Amino acid sequence: MSGRRIAGPEIEKLIQLLARVPGLGPRSARRAALQMIKKKDQLMGPLAEAMALVHERVTTCSTCGNADTSDPCAICSDPRRQTGTVIVVEEVADLWALERAAAMPNVLYHVLGGVLSPLDGIGPDDLSIAALVDRVHAGGISELILAVNATVEGQTTAHYITDRLADYDVAVTRLAHGVPVGGELDYLDDGTLAAALKSRTKF
Amino acid sequence: MSGRRIAGPEIEKLIQLLARVPGLGPRSARRAALQMIKKKDQLMGPLAEAMALVHERVTTCSTCGNADTSDPCAICSDPRRQTGTVIVVEEVADLWALERAAAMPNVLYHVLGGVLSPLDGIGPDDLSIAALVDRVHAGGISELILAVNATVEGQTTAHYITDRLADYDVAVTRLAHGVPVGGELDYLDDGTLAAALKSRTKF
Repeated sequence: MSGRRIAGPEIEKLIQLLARVPGLGPRSARRAALQMIKKKDQLMGPLAEAMALVHERVTTCSTCGNADTSDPCAICSDPRRQTGTVIVVEEVADLWALERAAAMPNVLYHVLGGVLSPLDGIGPDDLSIAALVDRVHAGGISELILAVNATVEGQTTAHYITDRLADYDVAVTRLAHGVPVGGELDYLDDGTLAAALKSRTKF
Repeated sequence: MSGRRIAGPEIEKLIQLLARVPGLGPRSARRAALQMIKKKDQLMGPLAEAMALVHERVTTCSTCGNADTSDPCAICSDPRRQTGTVIVVEEVADLWALERAAAMPNVLYHVLGGVLSPLDGIGPDDLSIAALVDRVHAGGISELILAVNATVEGQTTAHYITDRLADYDVAVTRLAHGVPVGGELDYLDDGTLAAALKSRTKF
């Protein structure tokens, strides 16, 4: 706008901040801001309040690393979930994705906060691996499902965790590799196809 | 999630509200919320504050109908823009789009707040047409550019406004119809092609 103001600085500031929200770009931030102004009391007011409240209350669960407004989080404090199974994930987003899938409703989680990546200078002490070993050491965990991403770093992290837990009586498993449900073979990479063939099951 | 809480009610509320922002759906709202939690103090805090501030201060310009934090708005109070040209638009979004294009920097605007639509029960009194006539009546406006959408309702509204201003010494113009810049003829509708041919200019 070459230095010309078309709206007050408060509105411009709001648009700039909205543009940094993932899923919104500069153009859609402007559209979102306008919609909020239009629905001032139904959308913008409640959203500002909800955001301030979460900002004030959100914390990291000291047990599993989940983001929640209570510590221990809603998942860790659910009595139905104390079944001895813990799913290890890289990020909170992965935990939420698995909860959405709801394939195993009665499990606990452990958020690593990333993966081992020597090139980026991320070692075991940068992740919550020691805390995971402590949880296993404390007992009550019979199975640890490593649900890390199927990347080199993810697999390296999985191997490292398995090594660290070698002395404990805990079953360490990982997610199956294979054809995505609804996926077409033609579009799959060779590695996935090879893994799917290798892990074929009886029909 | 079949009644199971995976995060505190404050976070669930935030996600629900974010999902109502245009450009974000339920899935991207979750991603946006997670990113905000991750960038708690760099993004969520400032955004909550900016939103609350705009919510508190935003108002409708009593002259042109623009949304701004001051009344008259930044555009109406800009002395460089008192050139006698007013662009009439349907919505604030159209005003912002024209300002972004910056093809005519020194103009004022008039936001109608919609278009005439008898089927939806929207008549002249539901739009700020009387206020537009008052502005013209007050003098100082030499040209009125009708930048309403090229829809039936938009064109009806344009004709109605032209009729209402028949007695005033003001030039009423409308946006040109034609081939969009960068557009391919093959993909254009017949109406646009016909309009572009009819309004052809010397090369």
